[in-house]
Amino acid sequence: MNKLLIVGTVAFDAIETPFGKTDKILGGAATYIGLSASNFKNVDSAIVSVIGDDFPKEHIDMLLNKQIDLSGLETVKGGKTFFWSGKYHNDMNSRDTIETQLNVLENFNPIVPETYKTADVVMLGNLHPLVQLGVIEQMTKKPKLVVLDTMDFWMDCALAELKQVIAKVDVITINDEEARQLSGEYSLVKAARVIAEMGPEYVVIKKGEHGALLFHKEKAFFAPALPLEEVFDPTGAGDTFAGGFSGHIASTGNISFDNMKNAVIHGSNLASFCVEKFGTERMEHLSKEDVSFRLKEFKELTKFDI
Amino acid sequence: MNKLLIVGTVAFDAIETPFGKTDKILGGAATYIGLSASNFKNVDSAIVSVIGDDFPKEHIDMLLNKQIDLSGLETVKGGKTFFWSGKYHNDMNSRDTIETQLNVLENFNPIVPETYKTADVVMLGNLHPLVQLGVIEQMTKKPKLVVLDTMDFWMDCALAELKQVIAKVDVITINDEEARQLSGEYSLVKAARVIAEMGPEYVVIKKGEHGALLFHKEKAFFAPALPLEEVFDPTGAGDTFAGGFSGHIASTGNISFDNMKNAVIHGSNLASFCVEKFGTERMEHLSKEDVSFRLKEFKELTKFDI
Repeated sequence: MNKLLIVGTVAFDAIETPFGKTDKILGGAATYIGLSASNFKNVDSAIVSVIGDDFPKEHIDMLLNKQIDLSGLETVKGGKTFFWSGKYHNDMNSRDTIETQLNVLENFNPIVPETYKTADVVMLGNLHPLVQLGVIEQMTKKPKLVVLDTMDFWMDCALAELKQVIAKVDVITINDEEARQLSGEYSLVKAARVIAEMGPEYVVIKKGEHGALLFHKEKAFFAPALPLEEVFDPTGAGDTFAGGFSGHIASTGNISFDNMKNAVIHGSNLASFCVEKFGTERMEHLSKEDVSFRLKEFKELTKFDI
Repeated sequence: MNKLLIVGTVAFDAIETPFGKTDKILGGAATYIGLSASNFKNVDSAIVSVIGDDFPKEHIDMLLNKQIDLSGLETVKGGKTFFWSGKYHNDMNSRDTIETQLNVLENFNPIVPETYKTADVVMLGNLHPLVQLGVIEQMTKKPKLVVLDTMDFWMDCALAELKQVIAKVDVITINDEEARQLSGEYSLVKAARVIAEMGPEYVVIKKGEHGALLFHKEKAFFAPALPLEEVFDPTGAGDTFAGGFSGHIASTGNISFDNMKNAVIHGSNLASFCVEKFGTERMEHLSKEDVSFRLKEFKELTKFDI
């Protein structure tokens, strides 16, 4: 078994889309990454994160049922779990944050479980760059691959720390607007080149419904997003992509460019499910057959013979 | 040799992009389609269009040099050639029309040359739907494939006539916003289904820098746009795509879904050159080697092996 170490938020989200509105439901980058990565064989995953004692046991049980190691999930007594609420615009491509309550995240010191300090793959989900850095520093063996996911929020308020983390990772996954912000380049080809100079050998640019690009040196690979009848709730799609990407790499133990292409396809495939229902609902009830059937659709969608 | 009949504007464009500004230069849907289709073997192409006697001989010579039959290109004595000027926004994905002078287009009655009334493929480039209809009606033999390109302008001011044309074609190529407008559906999957019910068995949705989708019954195919360092001028990219699509179909004489996928790839490949320079400049000086080299890049960009 290969080990995948996941750091990121475990949280409550309240979401409004043109299709409806939720109360506080399960969310968080690490949650989505863990659920997504649980679809791969030959991988042991652990989440490093923090929650308050307001976090329901049913969510814990669900994650444990998915065989995710939660020994690195700290519970703060009397603390409240991180909460985010947001509202999507009609086109579903943009959203407004309505409220962010950091709560227990404010003083979070991640502790990597002893058995995961030699993990093969480290997936740094969206969180304060110093927390991500703290996790990298606890590794006692150089991981095969360190993957970083982040967002514009940290570029706005902790750019120096973010750049420290970027310098230490092998892969960065970032959306198109963030890639432009981080690089100062509008062309994604140029943006990827600038970002690669900051550290990561592989740059993945996520374009939401327009797919994802993988850049490595002068090579590029493109994976479409599956054209869907309906996008119900985009929350967690980027994290699910990252979980599929890192889960596939951990599962195969292969970090060649060709296998990274497959990782991008697996990530896109899993993300296509995530958006079909509110929150984690679809990801909690995903069957092997669902996943492999849609993977075939992906191949059909892109295969040509010139 | 197979025959490709092209109808569309032959025009002057004045273009402003963040990179610069042109005076009146050669433009027009039929021009771009013809130039694009001239890259295929085994195809005789003819343009049906109209110009004024202000149209320079050098442009005529250039088109003739590309082996394009211009016997259906009417010159109106004392008339002025159609003129369009527009300005692209900074993101290059949207533009404002500054001026449109219909000029000789106002009273245009297309006349299909006798030898092209039995053409294998008819490419109806962007023009008034009644002109497109007039061309279809002159065909004395049912073409293997009739491809329609159009734009939102006709949806706004000649929807009934446009729907008459749509009912008579096999393939429609249309951009994402136009597909949404025409169908009233936001999801492109649903939009394509609604549009297919209006007539065309094949629906191609062009997403500019985000690639193109081909729908046929329950099947879908996606071709990315090549990630480019710089997009210099998007004018004509959609027409160039249509020229590559119809040119490949005419060249092969094969209208299977699998070959239509290849047609979409050829269209995307050729469009990737068009945007690299102002106007038709890049398309006028394209070598076989340029085209086949980039086709290989396209394969590399999308190939994976799961």
